[in-house]
This record gives sequence, structure tokens and C-alpha cells, in this order.
Amino acid sequence: MSAANRKVVLASRPSGYPVESNFRVEESQVPEVSVGEFLVRNAYVSLDAGFRNWMNEGSGDDVLPAMAIGAPVMGLTLGQVVASRNDAYREGEWLMARLAWEEYSLSDGADFISRLPEPRNWPLAHYLGVLGDTGLSAYFGLLDIGKPQPGETVLVSAAGGAVGNVVGQIARIQGARAVGIAGTDEKCERLVAELGFDAAVNHRSVDLAAEIAAACPEGVHVYFDSVGGPLLETVLAQIAEKGRIVMCGAVTAYNAIDPSPGPNNLFQLVTRQALMQGYLTHLSEHRYTEARAVIAQWLSDGKLKNVEYRLQGIDQVGRAFCDLFDGRNFGKTIVQLHDEAP
Amino acid sequence: MSAANRKVVLASRPSGYPVESNFRVEESQVPEVSVGEFLVRNAYVSLDAGFRNWMNEGSGDDVLPAMAIGAPVMGLTLGQVVASRNDAYREGEWLMARLAWEEYSLSDGADFISRLPEPRNWPLAHYLGVLGDTGLSAYFGLLDIGKPQPGETVLVSAAGGAVGNVVGQIARIQGARAVGIAGTDEKCERLVAELGFDAAVNHRSVDLAAEIAAACPEGVHVYFDSVGGPLLETVLAQIAEKGRIVMCGAVTAYNAIDPSPGPNNLFQLVTRQALMQGYLTHLSEHRYTEARAVIAQWLSDGKLKNVEYRLQGIDQVGRAFCDLFDGRNFGKTIVQLHDEAP
Repeated sequence: MSAANRKVVLASRPSGYPVESNFRVEESQVPEVSVGEFLVRNAYVSLDAGFRNWMNEGSGDDVLPAMAIGAPVMGLTLGQVVASRNDAYREGEWLMARLAWEEYSLSDGADFISRLPEPRNWPLAHYLGVLGDTGLSAYFGLLDIGKPQPGETVLVSAAGGAVGNVVGQIARIQGARAVGIAGTDEKCERLVAELGFDAAVNHRSVDLAAEIAAACPEGVHVYFDSVGGPLLETVLAQIAEKGRIVMCGAVTAYNAIDPSPGPNNLFQLVTRQALMQGYLTHLSEHRYTEARAVIAQWLSDGKLKNVEYRLQGIDQVGRAFCDLFDGRNFGKTIVQLHDEAP
Repeated sequence: MSAANRKVVLASRPSGYPVESNFRVEESQVPEVSVGEFLVRNAYVSLDAGFRNWMNEGSGDDVLPAMAIGAPVMGLTLGQVVASRNDAYREGEWLMARLAWEEYSLSDGADFISRLPEPRNWPLAHYLGVLGDTGLSAYFGLLDIGKPQPGETVLVSAAGGAVGNVVGQIARIQGARAVGIAGTDEKCERLVAELGFDAAVNHRSVDLAAEIAAACPEGVHVYFDSVGGPLLETVLAQIAEKGRIVMCGAVTAYNAIDPSPGPNNLFQLVTRQALMQGYLTHLSEHRYTEARAVIAQWLSDGKLKNVEYRLQGIDQVGRAFCDLFDGRNFGKTIVQLHDEAP
């Protein structure tokens, strides 16, 4: 174990989209473990856009306090207990926790910790992807609310993103057509070529509504919405009879979306007898084991891929976070912190 | 049978809310019945705000053409066949149909006709109220989508209106609390005193949000929305966990609501894991018999009241329609066209 602990601190508060200069790497000593505490060596950092919210001045809420300038940036990590003076956490255990962008974290067990399932048959980073919050958000939202039927069309916003790519793949597994919306032609091509989407539409198209109509000739039976805004209005105009709009809320996106004007055509819900419903993945925690078993089977059968956008080293964490907002990522964005990470 | 047929014609197109001078009574001969036709003597006219839409220039759509200046105003009527040269409709039958504001109507059977159920144990006008589209809209929307549970709070917009008053009464029958929103203190008092609502709020209150919060201290479990607009935004802020928002679309309101900005806090659906769903009553037509039987039982048991705002005579039809928009009505607005109407 190295005696140095490198961490990314908040150098300045982002104004709008974050930029790399909002973050700075600092080095300190690996902390001593006091009674009741344990030390985690972080192997991976998960990058989730929702944490942007708590970088704002005065943004603290019931979930998290506002991040402080000069303090390590809070985030979701996956790491191993390397020293413990807390009976509930033993050395060698692998944990996911809401800790910080740092190589080593001290915890007293109060940091939204979950243990990795045992046995594990998959690369560790899958548990931040299809087998983690990301995959579970896709799974519960699409199956519980969207309920895609064979032959129906499932339209997925942010389809190149961590959750969206899994939604489209699961839609296909259910026998539905998957149509993705993404921000570049390259991503659209990858959705179709690598992940089996039936079609994909670049949301920067000159006539997005016409492109969606062409890709969804029988209307949109299920819309998986993690975007809202003008796109929701566009899709509402094309929602099929008895269509379902899934409003995605991963735990990490909780509270992250600022109020903005709603769609002006909500009455479409009446004329099409459609439904719009929100959910929070972490409230289905009692079903995680069952859901992970299904997802793992799909992985085994080669029906589902874990798609990663992986960078290496603590120096890259700030950049990886910025890449989420620039749309450079494809799949789940993670940073691997050290070479021994399994 | 009188040889004169009085009818209300569209004198001019309303600009915004209709006024009485938009309508004019004219007299003509009762028409001759040709082969394939039958003559209906209308006993009641049902006034439904949704028809306002088709009074606009160029408003025609799949459902109805735009109304023409100088032609009888289209509307829902309840009447009896008094002469028939059409085998499908026999003399003496009672029908509800999309005909016009007139004492006698000629039909060839293509006018969205439904027969009154037999046997009938209730006053005829009930079939335009709790036993008609009005009551059925309340019944299907509240029970199929709202699913109120005992002890939950059901908030009803336009609670003094034709559908809203029934929604609140059925909510009470289900063991839920009913809270109404209406436009005058007098209506609020009547909702509580006459119809058993637990509370009622005047939507012209200085601090409507605070009034709703006081009346719904555990949040809004079910919101029956036939209004949309800023009120929906106010209610979304107070929606309970797993709350249900019923977006009401009686067949007669189909297409009647112009696009207006949506609520800026739709993300509440995510944080509260809530649902918003629309429906069209007439698509549940196969369940009307069953639903009417349940409603009739509630009437028999004295648990449900048919509330009418009734005016008399063809001269009053235009005014009755204007009263809908001025909020003068309480309950279902109808005009009785002749004294023999049972």
C-alpha cells in the first residue's frame, strides 16, 4: 500500500457545464483508521451526471450536502476494504459506496454502502454498469413501467448513455423494436451495429420529429425519458395509443434536474390514453438480487453487452466527468484508479 | 306534435368565452321524414364545454366538422323517436345522440347514437348526468386510474362541475377523503354540505398552494385533473408518493384543450414515483352496463346524488352554455326543452 493518497478536489464551482479546470488533483497521506472506521482502496470511480447538482452553491438537500470548494468531490466508487476497525466491514470485502474521487477513502459505514453480490462471475466494473445502478435503472424502468410487448417500438433518449444503451438492449430481448436517440452520427451507428438497435436518430437532426416518425412508423409505444424538455414534447406528439412514458430517475439523478417549462401537449396523454410514470431505482432494492440474476443470464447468453467508456487514473476523473456532458462517452463512464483493479 | 321546430343557430363565432349574442333562436317547420330517416323530439340538451372547440373557424377534425354560421349548433341531446322510416329505430324509443340544439332532429342513424338502457328506474335526465357520460367519466377515470384507497386523499379540480362532483362522491364511497377545488365560496360550501366532500378550496384563494396543503396534509394521493395549466403545477408540488394523476377526457372534451405551457415540475413524477394517465370514456363502452349498475346501486342506497343545473326551454340553451364558462353551473348543466319531458 502506497502512503500517498491522491484525490480530486473541487477547485471552483462549474457555471453551466463543468470544465476540467473546475477540478484539481491533490495529494495527501493515506488516513489512519480509528475505531469504528475502515479504509477502502477505490478501484473504480463511477461518473454520474446527477452529482453535478451538488457542485452548486447552496445545493444541499436531504440526500447530500452541497460540495465544498477544496474538498474531495463526492461520487460513487467501487473499492476493497484494506483495513478495518469496524466489525461490520472485514478486510478484503468489495463495496460500492457514495464516497469521493480519491484513491483511498475512510468510512464509518454511513456512506450509502452496498456490498457486491457473491459469487461474482463478471468483471468487477460490470457492477457499476449493467449489474449496477445503471443496469437496474434500465431493467426496472423499462419492465415495470414501459412493459414493452413483442413488436412494439421502444424509443430511448440518451441511448448512448449508461442507462439508455441497456434499455434498448433489454427492449430487443423482449421482442420489441429499439430506436435510440443520440447526439452524434457515430453513436447512432454504434447503437445499431454493436448493440442491435433497429434504428437510431441523431437529436441534432434538422427535422428531428420527421426522423423519429420515420423510425417509429407505428408511433412510440414506450418512450424511455431521461431527458425531458423539448424532446418530450416532440415524442408526446407521436406517442401511440396506450403508450407508456418512463421517467427515469436513478438514485444518483435524484433532484438533479432543474425546473424547466413542461411540454405544451400533455393533453396527448388523454387523446392517446397514454401514461407517464416516474420511479426511483433504489426503492426497488429488495428486488436487486432477482434482477441481477436475470441480467447475468442475458450476459451469459450473449444477449446483453456491458458497454463501458473507461479512462485510466485519478488524473482522468475530472475529464471523464466533463465528457458526460460533452457527450463523448458511449456506455457507462468509469475511471479505473489502479492497475491491479480486477 | 307541433308543426314548428325552434332551434339555436350559431349567430357569430365566439372570441374566447362564448356570450349569449353568439346564439340566436330561429323557427322552421318540423322536417319531413324520408326513407331511411327518423325524427327525434328532443327532451333535453346536454351542455358540454368541449363543443366550444368546434365553434372556431377551421376547427373541423376527425370527430366533427367546424360548426357553420347560421346552422344549428351541434350538441348532445336526449330525445324520443316520434316518427321513423328506418327499421333500426322504432317510434317511442329514447336515444342520446350528437344532434343539435333544436326541438326536433332528423337523423339517418349516423349521429353517434346510443340507446337508453332498459329498464330505466331513474328520471330521464339522470342519463345525461350520473348515469351518462358524466358519471361514467368520473367512474372509469377515478377507479381505473386513480384507484383511491381508504384513507387516501382525492383532490378534484372543477369539483362543482358535471364530472368533478361525481368524482368526489365516488371517492367518498371508496373510503377516501374528497377535497374539491371550485371557483366560488358558495360552491365550496355546497360540495361539503350537500355532497359530503371533506373539504373544498376556492381556486381564487390568495395562496391556493397553502390552502391545498392545509386540506391535504398527507399530500395528494389522487388528483383528478380536468383543468391542466398552473393548477396542475401547484398540485404536482404536493403529490404524494406513488400518487396518481387522472387526466380526464370525456368524449365531448376530445380535442377541446388548446396547447398551453406544461408544468415546470414534471420531475416530481420521478421523485414521488407518481403516475399521470389519460383516458377517453367512450372507449370503455363495453363496460357501460356494468358501470351503470354499480352507479344505480349507489343512487338507490342514497350514497350518490345526481346534481343538476337545469334551465327550461330552447331560449335558454345559449345562456346555459355560456354559464358553463362563467362557472354559474353546479353539477350537470341541462336544458329541458318541453314540459312533457319525463
